[in-house]
Amino acid sequence: MSRASAHQLGFLALAILACAGTADGEPEKAPFALVIHGGAGTIRAEDFTAEREAAYRGALTAALDKGSGLLAGGASSLDVVEAVIREMEDDPLFNAGRGAVFTAAGRNELDASIMDGATTLAGGVAGVTRVRHPISAARAVMERTNHVLLAGAGAERFAEAQGLEMVDPEFFWTESRWQSLERAREKESRETAAQAEPFGTVGAVALDRNGRIAAGTSTGGMTNKKHGRIGDSPIIGAGTYANERCGVSATGHGEYFIRFAVAFDICARLRSGELTLEQAADQVIHGVLGEAGGKGGIIALDDAGTPVLIFNTDGMYRGYRVAEGEPVVAIFKND
Amino acid sequence: MSRASAHQLGFLALAILACAGTADGEPEKAPFALVIHGGAGTIRAEDFTAEREAAYRGALTAALDKGSGLLAGGASSLDVVEAVIREMEDDPLFNAGRGAVFTAAGRNELDASIMDGATTLAGGVAGVTRVRHPISAARAVMERTNHVLLAGAGAERFAEAQGLEMVDPEFFWTESRWQSLERAREKESRETAAQAEPFGTVGAVALDRNGRIAAGTSTGGMTNKKHGRIGDSPIIGAGTYANERCGVSATGHGEYFIRFAVAFDICARLRSGELTLEQAADQVIHGVLGEAGGKGGIIALDDAGTPVLIFNTDGMYRGYRVAEGEPVVAIFKND
Repeated sequence: MSRASAHQLGFLALAILACAGTADGEPEKAPFALVIHGGAGTIRAEDFTAEREAAYRGALTAALDKGSGLLAGGASSLDVVEAVIREMEDDPLFNAGRGAVFTAAGRNELDASIMDGATTLAGGVAGVTRVRHPISAARAVMERTNHVLLAGAGAERFAEAQGLEMVDPEFFWTESRWQSLERAREKESRETAAQAEPFGTVGAVALDRNGRIAAGTSTGGMTNKKHGRIGDSPIIGAGTYANERCGVSATGHGEYFIRFAVAFDICARLRSGELTLEQAADQVIHGVLGEAGGKGGIIALDDAGTPVLIFNTDGMYRGYRVAEGEPVVAIFKND
Repeated sequence: MSRASAHQLGFLALAILACAGTADGEPEKAPFALVIHGGAGTIRAEDFTAEREAAYRGALTAALDKGSGLLAGGASSLDVVEAVIREMEDDPLFNAGRGAVFTAAGRNELDASIMDGATTLAGGVAGVTRVRHPISAARAVMERTNHVLLAGAGAERFAEAQGLEMVDPEFFWTESRWQSLERAREKESRETAAQAEPFGTVGAVALDRNGRIAAGTSTGGMTNKKHGRIGDSPIIGAGTYANERCGVSATGHGEYFIRFAVAFDICARLRSGELTLEQAADQVIHGVLGEAGGKGGIIALDDAGTPVLIFNTDGMYRGYRVAEGEPVVAIFKND
């Protein structure tokens, strides 16, 4: 199994760099950090044109730059997670917001969730079809209702009443996603089991200058999904989790992430103080999930700003930036 | 905080009794056990007529007898959890199935989930309005789809296509639940925040003769709930969890149970081998949940058949039966 270990050595070096700022008498500032993903799955270098690869690297870098700039300016991790995910929701490269895939019925049904680690408050929406930025609807659920998860038409009416930007469902129609649905339908008619596309999702975890962690996840679901299926992305504990010490956003075959409460479990394994975040994430993604046959990955941060990016698929669109360090983006396993 | 400790000493005695069957040379059989709940909340003896109290005790005893009989005959824990919850769904005393409360829009929207600890497979449905037995729809999701959670009209069409019993939404109309909605609406017009009813839910956890644990939960939701709210009952990890060593069904203020992944966390705390199930449940219900202001309770079993029933509310409709022992039912805190 791949552990992207060389990659993670880089993270550590950067994290250490980020924490070393106080030695020369500067006023002590908490480290700040941002880690993002744009989905995991069958993502292989040989299937990419140079243009397509550059487009993804550019989009990831832009999202990191935006979020890191906000963090440097003192923005809260919650604001940064929302802002970064809104940007990725607007980019048709990613399966979230504008670039959402189609359900079997030819619709776009969007899910998202967000959690504030400092307060452990959380919100999510499932199956919305007219909300331009589902992550903002998730945040509105967190901040303006007593609920954690709203679904379907009720969630939509709530978002509209809160003044969020609503769009015609046509807004989410993109040629490439429609072709994906056509391919999935063809394949389904040839095979008994439909094979899903790469697990498209976007996510962000941020640690701000006040030491607060937040995490969020947004998705357009699975191509050709049926029956009002809800995956892990809107579910706190499965696709998203944050507390005072840890934040996680997941992407992958959502059913496995629900059954093993993946995002929560990674944070829970830190409680004893015996494991690092990387060890905890490794146990869950390569141990629990991998042994059960579940495919996907996670991004995570601890309260020292150490980014962890682990997946058991061929690739994961991903990146991180610690404090004022260089943004690092990657796509393939050995990237 | 109440820990119902005297009550739990009784459980231990029974559990020990149940495990002692092999000493006199009988063929070794795993213990079997069943624990159920019918919701937690502001349930006080002074608010009950003798008739009403007797009706609840009778319903709990009947459910235990049915389930224990099946277990004694060698039924699987999964079959027993489904059968017991179907029985409680048909009883208008409980807020699940037939006795479901009304949403703010005057509808009955039902949620349920089930998990098989031996395989860690799971299924759930949210927001169905025409499925007579939501727990059976949850099981169909688990066994006949690749998904874990289906919601709304899609879930309903799936259940119908699977041949489950469908009813007119009127089937779920009961006079007492309608009056609850009227009271909630009146109260809401007088106060800024609507106060919820006791947290009505039903749940069951069973350990069968083959040592397999299963858990399930079913609910009619919260009276006067809005916006397509989904609580913890259909969510694996929040309201229901089972693995090889532990099964949990929860009832309470669902938003807290989601934020703290209550059912999963109780099972996760057993991993180190340092805690008993009762200690793990106590840490979560009185520690994590209680400190955050979350109200509710859980029922649970470990692989030795030890029943645990813990809540931080005034009462919880509950009962257990270990092997061929007497059924024990209780309602109030010091019952």
